[in-house]
Amino acid sequence: MNPESAANARREVIAEFPVRYAETDAMAVVHHASYIVYFEEARCHYMREQGSEYALVEADGFRLPVTEVHVRYVGSLVYGDRVRVRTWIAENKSRKLTFAYEIMNDKDERVLVTGSTEHIWTDLNGRVTRAPERWQLK
Amino acid sequence: MNPESAANARREVIAEFPVRYAETDAMAVVHHASYIVYFEEARCHYMREQGSEYALVEADGFRLPVTEVHVRYVGSLVYGDRVRVRTWIAENKSRKLTFAYEIMNDKDERVLVTGSTEHIWTDLNGRVTRAPERWQLK
Amino acid sequence: MNPESAANARREVIAEFPVRYAETDAMAVVHHASYIVYFEEARCHYMREQGSEYALVEADGFRLPVTEVHVRYVGSLVYGDRVRVRTWIAENKSRKLTFAYEIMNDKDERVLVTGSTEHIWTDLNGRVTRAPERWQLK
Amino acid sequence: MNPESAANARREVIAEFPVRYAETDAMAVVHHASYIVYFEEARCHYMREQGSEYALVEADGFRLPVTEVHVRYVGSLVYGDRVRVRTWIAENKSRKLTFAYEIMNDKDERVLVTGSTEHIWTDLNGRVTRAPERWQLK
Repeated sequence: MNPESAANARREVIAEFPVRYAETDAMAVVHHASYIVYFEEARCHYMREQGSEYALVEADGFRLPVTEVHVRYVGSLVYGDRVRVRTWIAENKSRKLTFAYEIMNDKDERVLVTGSTEHIWTDLNGRVTRAPERWQLK
Repeated sequence: MNPESAANARREVIAEFPVRYAETDAMAVVHHASYIVYFEEARCHYMREQGSEYALVEADGFRLPVTEVHVRYVGSLVYGDRVRVRTWIAENKSRKLTFAYEIMNDKDERVLVTGSTEHIWTDLNGRVTRAPERWQLK
Repeated sequence: MNPESAANARREVIAEFPVRYAETDAMAVVHHASYIVYFEEARCHYMREQGSEYALVEADGFRLPVTEVHVRYVGSLVYGDRVRVRTWIAENKSRKLTFAYEIMNDKDERVLVTGSTEHIWTDLNGRVTRAPERWQLK
Repeated sequence: MNPESAANARREVIAEFPVRYAETDAMAVVHHASYIVYFEEARCHYMREQGSEYALVEADGFRLPVTEVHVRYVGSLVYGDRVRVRTWIAENKSRKLTFAYEIMNDKDERVLVTGSTEHIWTDLNGRVTRAPERWQLK
């Protein structure tokens, strides 16, 4: 497999859902903080699709809190759009996990917002742990 | 058609989507204000299903602002649940519209939260108008 | 004191804070769900002013979940306004508590939004209890 | 003034307000997206303190949309804390502005969350403009 197809081989999951009116602001576009919630929803969808539903991960005694967030806003979503989030794992270490995201609407393929979130694996008391064998993400 | 089956004949639309972690609170259940946003999302879904997508209604010069909200909380949704909202029109007058809602999760048919929202038809300047012919809801 | 002045003697607490841009929507006014959060903030302020800070109430093993919400929207707040919420206890029973609210801005005394929230006293497992002696509200 | 004291001379503004229950999540801490709203509130407070209230800036035909957000989470706020945000301008160019933030609670001086937001100056149609003379920030 050459480097290019290796890059293409990353697992990507698309989440899609409508913009909610509550998520817009007085500039008539989606408020910038709403995209962090879109990232979260897309990440949970990614995990669900992998059989690692986050509610089960927590019930099993593990957490994956956010330690860092980066977002770049190039364009905007508006009410009436459907949010499309492409999600993949940018880095997967024994104690740390990084998700990357690209947000588009349902009208064209132009990327409007990009970002990433870093996470550490912890137990329910907040102590850093190794990624649990059972909930490995790919 | 007897009155009972007339009542049963009301048009109901079900919207379904996952609880977001951001919508929960420190009691480990969905925060009570999140249900108002669920109502909104369910109402917009209802309108979309009727060919009266709210974004088009606004683009056509009309608005449907909320004038009253009632909510009763009998039980709670938690993270991991899917939200199921049953929506119907409880009252439809020339200038005023009332939606009613019942919220369940995806695990059983028990109704956890009920409520209603009242709306008036206005133009873009906030003046009360008649329900626009083109965007009649049933 | 006659009954009327007794009624007038109800304890009212004013909370005041700025509208946040995130709380507005594409109609360029505060989104209707944000007022439920304003009610919550005002209620917590009321309790704090009474020496019954809700964080301490919870730490002491009690909760005061919301069982009902009513809101009427007569006017709107916009970004740039300060929110002013007048809060009082409308009903105080052994197991149930009702707060009432009036929301204004800082520019005039016109009431824009009114509402109420009903609550029950529970323990941390959600079992209904009597109002704890120590956290009596007036 | 030597470079070091110049650096120390940066203008800092502290905003302080209570954590709202709605901002917490099922981990019993403030949800990570809420800090982006705290940054916004702190930034608006900074501008208000400078006589450049953002509502007036918009009324004057200018906007300052967010083009980038970075957040690092080292610790957490909980319900019962007061949020303390220290805000300063990290970079101020003719078309671009960067705010930096440190978030603490009211109990000690430990920094729990740090971050920055980048902005561009635009007119009401979204065209990039020079920073308006009248609303210069320091």
